[in-house]
Amino acid sequence: MHGGELSLIEALARRLPPAGPRVVRGIGDDAAVVLAGPVSVTSVDAAVENVHFRLAEGCASRADAGYKALASALSDLAAMGVAAGEAYIVLGASPGLSEAQALEVIDGVCELAGQFDVSVAGGDVVSSPVLSLCVTVVGWADSAASPVLRSGAAAGDLVGVTGALGGAGAGLALMDGRVRLEEELAAHVLARARRPKPRMDEGIALRRAGARAMIDISDGLASDAAHLARASGLTLEIDLSLLPLDRGVVQAAAQLGVEPWRLAAGCGEDYELCFCVAPAERTKIERSLAAAGGAGVRWIGEALGAGETEPEVRFRSEAGLVQMQGFEHRW
Amino acid sequence: MHGGELSLIEALARRLPPAGPRVVRGIGDDAAVVLAGPVSVTSVDAAVENVHFRLAEGCASRADAGYKALASALSDLAAMGVAAGEAYIVLGASPGLSEAQALEVIDGVCELAGQFDVSVAGGDVVSSPVLSLCVTVVGWADSAASPVLRSGAAAGDLVGVTGALGGAGAGLALMDGRVRLEEELAAHVLARARRPKPRMDEGIALRRAGARAMIDISDGLASDAAHLARASGLTLEIDLSLLPLDRGVVQAAAQLGVEPWRLAAGCGEDYELCFCVAPAERTKIERSLAAAGGAGVRWIGEALGAGETEPEVRFRSEAGLVQMQGFEHRW
Repeated sequence: MHGGELSLIEALARRLPPAGPRVVRGIGDDAAVVLAGPVSVTSVDAAVENVHFRLAEGCASRADAGYKALASALSDLAAMGVAAGEAYIVLGASPGLSEAQALEVIDGVCELAGQFDVSVAGGDVVSSPVLSLCVTVVGWADSAASPVLRSGAAAGDLVGVTGALGGAGAGLALMDGRVRLEEELAAHVLARARRPKPRMDEGIALRRAGARAMIDISDGLASDAAHLARASGLTLEIDLSLLPLDRGVVQAAAQLGVEPWRLAAGCGEDYELCFCVAPAERTKIERSLAAAGGAGVRWIGEALGAGETEPEVRFRSEAGLVQMQGFEHRW
Repeated sequence: MHGGELSLIEALARRLPPAGPRVVRGIGDDAAVVLAGPVSVTSVDAAVENVHFRLAEGCASRADAGYKALASALSDLAAMGVAAGEAYIVLGASPGLSEAQALEVIDGVCELAGQFDVSVAGGDVVSSPVLSLCVTVVGWADSAASPVLRSGAAAGDLVGVTGALGGAGAGLALMDGRVRLEEELAAHVLARARRPKPRMDEGIALRRAGARAMIDISDGLASDAAHLARASGLTLEIDLSLLPLDRGVVQAAAQLGVEPWRLAAGCGEDYELCFCVAPAERTKIERSLAAAGGAGVRWIGEALGAGETEPEVRFRSEAGLVQMQGFEHRW
């Protein structure tokens, strides 16, 4: 740590809201001291300038970069059905980054942290060739059996998703100048790409209502449902006509010359949850999600025994099985 | 995450040794699930190519970079007197980094992790303009009062340090071509700079024997003792003639044209521990450290009431009070 970094750490620490009652010692010692729950649930994530975000007019602000870096990490805890307790932030400060600019990044982090009562309990600042954030989030569960893994699905399960898909992909295409949308739709898809809302309350509701396998859709439904299928040793069959399309997706897809479901299943960055439940739990899940907020649920497919083939995800359209290709999803 | 990163994550995960019994679910889900102790003690740290290490002939290997990144994070837990449980690693992969090269980095991490029974319980790989590592380490303590903070020193306390100082600084000067040392000394100081040994066992022994304030000397004794002084609201007076000089420091300092204690107190990267104890505990501390390993203790000063002045650290030589300047400590 050099003198400049130290004064920057002190400035950032002053900007943070007070930590919650779990945090015995936050920033300002060699390590943070936190009262633990029985089981820790921990995820690490990083966001790097010009890889995960672009600081340009019409793309992302420094506050967006901070907000989204934390959102991406929190979304992993949502996918376990676990509330977040603390976050630890390493800020990679690019050459010439002023204290005011660093505070913009942290303000974005704190805005989202405040929405979910997450305490920023530790951090560090290092020099870096580009602006980057490395985020560690820790949640606390009551037992080791409580977090929802990717591996718990069973043959016959229904496959559900929260919210709507493809909006972030449409927003990224808009940032890249590949599509144009009318003002209100543009604002909606840009917000989806810049400030995704991690589905924390929905993840907890899904766990309590009996979801037995879950993943967040950060890399696109095609990639992430395949992880779930492999971890559970099953094949998931998903009906593309059932995907919940976000507003603006049909218009953006038409301009890109692709079917809307390619944006919805191939782009990622939507940070919705994909999960498997026993058919008997369907109504309970729908009621729990309705009580947890406005995201809602759409049933998009089912889990089949893997049979003779490798576990995989199959996408079916009216014309038959479809080969999915990933999109580039940078912003 | 892109396809290439995913296959790299899988290759790195296969390379890791089996996690310890605390880890219920390690790499391979949205988040890691770990059986917690009563209190978590957590530190985050980052190492960035060309800022914290240089991958050049005679400087550092990729394995050194991995080893040192974890060492630096573990040293923070040593300074709390707490054993490490788990580590979480984000690898920022530079353009063109091959799988074999990424495995070299992880091998360096694992070599040190194995020495202290640390489980690598999670991680991520992202693209980055330069090789970088972000390391989160978590230790578990029995109570919130157990970790040794920086703030617990009292007037009249003795100030001690473990091991020897200035070796890493001499090693960095050697890497930069500013000094030359005979072969055996050169190997010693280069090892100090490339692969610092975090004082884990010594930190725990010091806590148990009654150390009531502690910090690791990663930024140099001058900077770090000042943190301890400010956190405890005291002035620390340190006698420069008492500093334990590492082998090679006298020779390197002569060639640099500075007093040896400037290397020992100004350079950092030695990852020794500086601590305060009541005078009555002196013998107990010496015996505990002797039992914990070969680092030993040197008593270098005492804590004075801050009195009318701001808390600070004062360095005294035979000629009187000395103004300390930091050294550049890059490698």
